[in-house]
This record gives sequence, C-alpha cells and structure tokens, in this order.
Amino acid sequence: MSAALPGQAAGAGIALDFATYQALVQLYAEYACAVDSGDWDLWPGFFVDDCRYRLVPRENHERGLPLATLSFESKGMLKDRVYGIRETLFHDPYYQRHVVSLPCVHAVTADGIRCETNYVVIRTRRNELAAVYNAGRYLDWIVHTDTGLKFRERIAVFDSELIPNSLIYPI
Amino acid sequence: MSAALPGQAAGAGIALDFATYQALVQLYAEYACAVDSGDWDLWPGFFVDDCRYRLVPRENHERGLPLATLSFESKGMLKDRVYGIRETLFHDPYYQRHVVSLPCVHAVTADGIRCETNYVVIRTRRNELAAVYNAGRYLDWIVHTDTGLKFRERIAVFDSELIPNSLIYPI
Amino acid sequence: MSAALPGQAAGAGIALDFATYQALVQLYAEYACAVDSGDWDLWPGFFVDDCRYRLVPRENHERGLPLATLSFESKGMLKDRVYGIRETLFHDPYYQRHVVSLPCVHAVTADGIRCETNYVVIRTRRNELAAVYNAGRYLDWIVHTDTGLKFRERIAVFDSELIPNSLIYPI
Repeated sequence: MSAALPGQAAGAGIALDFATYQALVQLYAEYACAVDSGDWDLWPGFFVDDCRYRLVPRENHERGLPLATLSFESKGMLKDRVYGIRETLFHDPYYQRHVVSLPCVHAVTADGIRCETNYVVIRTRRNELAAVYNAGRYLDWIVHTDTGLKFRERIAVFDSELIPNSLIYPI
Repeated sequence: MSAALPGQAAGAGIALDFATYQALVQLYAEYACAVDSGDWDLWPGFFVDDCRYRLVPRENHERGLPLATLSFESKGMLKDRVYGIRETLFHDPYYQRHVVSLPCVHAVTADGIRCETNYVVIRTRRNELAAVYNAGRYLDWIVHTDTGLKFRERIAVFDSELIPNSLIYPI
Repeated sequence: MSAALPGQAAGAGIALDFATYQALVQLYAEYACAVDSGDWDLWPGFFVDDCRYRLVPRENHERGLPLATLSFESKGMLKDRVYGIRETLFHDPYYQRHVVSLPCVHAVTADGIRCETNYVVIRTRRNELAAVYNAGRYLDWIVHTDTGLKFRERIAVFDSELIPNSLIYPI
C-alpha cells in the first residue's frame, strides 16, 4: 500500500490522538456533504491556498501517465472551476451522493497526514433511477491550519474507464 | 452545511469524547445491520418513544414542501409500520443492504447530538442482480437514554426521484 | 443482532480503547485497499495462519446450509487461491472497489473482537460502466498478534443470489 503514496516518510507512525482522528473523519464527512449539497462555493474551502486537486483515471495513475481528467494547482483554480460549473459549463443538472469508506492512514508526520479512502458516488438524474457514477479512492495529504484540517492535496483515482457523460461537479 | 439542520444551536461544539463517538458509530452500524436483517421488530428499538421518522424526497426537503414518502411521529407508529410490513403490505420480498458513510457531527449540546450521514442502500431481488435502490443522507437528532443512544429524530432525505417499486422496508 | 454471531460471549462488553478502535478501522480500511489494489499477494497477510475465510450466499448462511462459494481453512489455502487467481483461473480482468460501512462491534473479550460490517463492491470492467458487483456483510473474528490485528475468521455473506460472472478476486 505504501508504494501508492510517494512522499510518505519511511517509518512514520500512523497513530493519531482521538481529537485529530475525529477531525479527520469530520473533514471527510463534511467534504462529502458539501460536494453533494449543490452549494459549490463550499468546495474550495476544504483546501489550503497552495493546494493540488486531481481527478485521474486509474489506468493513467498506475502507469504514471500525466493525463488527468481534472487538474488544479491552487485554490484559485478551484474557485474558477466553481464559476465554470455555475456559469459556463453546459450540462444537465444531477444529484450526486458520496459514500466514503473507512479511512486508511498511511503516515502521520510533522508534515501532515497521508491518508487513503475508497469512495463511491451515486448519481441521480431527473426522472432516472439512482446509479453508480464514479468509484475509486482518494489519496490525500492533509495539513493542520489555524482553521482546522485542510487538504494540501486530494487525488481522486477513479476505476471507471467509461464515464456516463461528463464529470461536472467535484468528486 | 449548518443551514441544513434547523434547530442546531449556534456556536455549539462538535467534539465528542471517544466513548460517545464509539457509541454514535455503533448506533449507526447497528441500525444498518438491523434494518438489513429482515427482523423488522428490531427497528423501533432504535428510537425513543416520542420520536420522529421521515423519508423525504430531496426536492421536497429542499423546497420546504411538507410531503413525505413516510412520516411517523411516535414509536407506536413505527411499530404499526412493522406490523404493516409483515402482515398487510403486499410486496415481493427483497434483501436490502445499507452502506453508511462517515458521520458528520453538526452540534453536540445538552439537548443531544445533531449529525448527518450519507448512505446508499443496495437492493437484491430474487433472481436479479444487486443494484442501487436508494441513496441520500440521514439528518439525525440523537439523545442519551438509560439504554444508550437513541434517535429522537431521523430524517432520510433521498436523492432518487424515481424509486424502483415501492419502499417497503425501513431505510 | 447478537444471534447472528454464534460463539459470541454472553454479556461481553463492546467498548474498545481508542488505540484498538483505530487499529480495527485501519485493518478494515487496509484490507479494502489491498484487495482492490490488484496486488493479490497482500491478501493472505491480513489473516493468522490458522484462519477461516468463507464467501457465502445469504440464503445458505441464514438456513445454516453448509454450501459456500469459497471456503478456505488456513492461510496456506489463501495463498493457493492467490496462485490460482494469477496463474490458473481463466477470467477477464476487472477492477473492484470495496466501500465498507461503519463497524458494528459485537463483543470484545480475551479471545478477540467479534465485529460485523456491511460492504458493497463496485466492479469496473474494461470499456464498461462501473456497477454494483457484490453487497453483503462481513462477520469477523479479529485477534491481537505480535504484528497487529489480524483476521482469525472472516465470513462474507453476500445478498446477491445472482453474480455477474464468477467471483474471482477476494471480497
């Protein structure tokens, strides 16, 4: 597993105190609620300014290929994306629902927390049945800030090679 | 997020001690196991006598419309529903399986715990493949009782506007 | 619920200290990541030598019928299975993704931890959409070892009576 997370400190522990553990689970849960709420402005707030968000097909990730479905390198780019979702991207609205699996902590260091979590996103379109939309895992680098835990990096590696229409909203 | 939970105390903390946290996760997990077990009599036991259970389409919930798919205002009504499931509701039996996401705690006060959690229910009918049945979020008000944590209120807001046949068993 | 876990000590507590709780969640999360990684050699490492792994349809489990889809009685048999997956079982490769629900602890004794957890596995085949593959619950007996928590027994009881093709990879 460790090999999946470059940058992980060798020999780092994975033990967290309970307050940090609860904050970590809360971060994951609030993120899921936020991106499913339809209030897209909440999304960038989960990241530090100097962040990285990528949505990558598993095949590309595992082969080390650079191509990503989405790739943002700052909180400003996330805000641009939110603007795009609301104002410029032509799409049929849909509901999405993230169900996040139990967190797998890889390393806890002075540099932050490296953590991985499986997820599935269920999509519901108007007048259609709910269906699996996107499944994969989050590879996260989480840091402490004055306003709590934030993502320094979130990479969503999704298994699906085919996507039912475009991925518009944040995963 | 806070706006989604009317009744939430302003400025309330969300920190739990570990024993309460484990009890909260256990409540969610036992509820899921119980409603998936087929032993419907277990279901009302998760609620206090003076409880509220609602199953509401997301559209109605977000527009503040009163219509709910199911709406029960006491433990007695939950028991009536169980009687209905077993004795009077005509339906094809099916298996259901709840997968519950990580809990998002909104407020911890003397009044109890306000918490929200995404869920997906997978249904398996005889001689059919398992498929997504219902996805949404639980909006919960949980209280301490002499017999542990119980639901004072559980509102399941589901994304699906179409439902594959009726919702018979508890979500 | 208790009735579902034969062998559970009557009156046993379910409280865990936080370090053990984190280790339990971590075990579940690492197992899911491992069996989804495609590196099948990781799988036997989650079990003690004298272990039991079964994959059983719900109908057989509930009726006490002995037939299982898979049944292994030692770590050696798990390693044989891994060899089979890689070398002898003819199958179309696919990705799988486990999303594991919150753990429901049944008993904590000197003998280990009895725990139950719902799960869903999403499968993605080349050039197909991701879809629900297998849903059910894990019935686990987890023990302390010198190298951390391991499975003494993991029984996956799945709801699906029909399976889309064979179950090749570990659930």
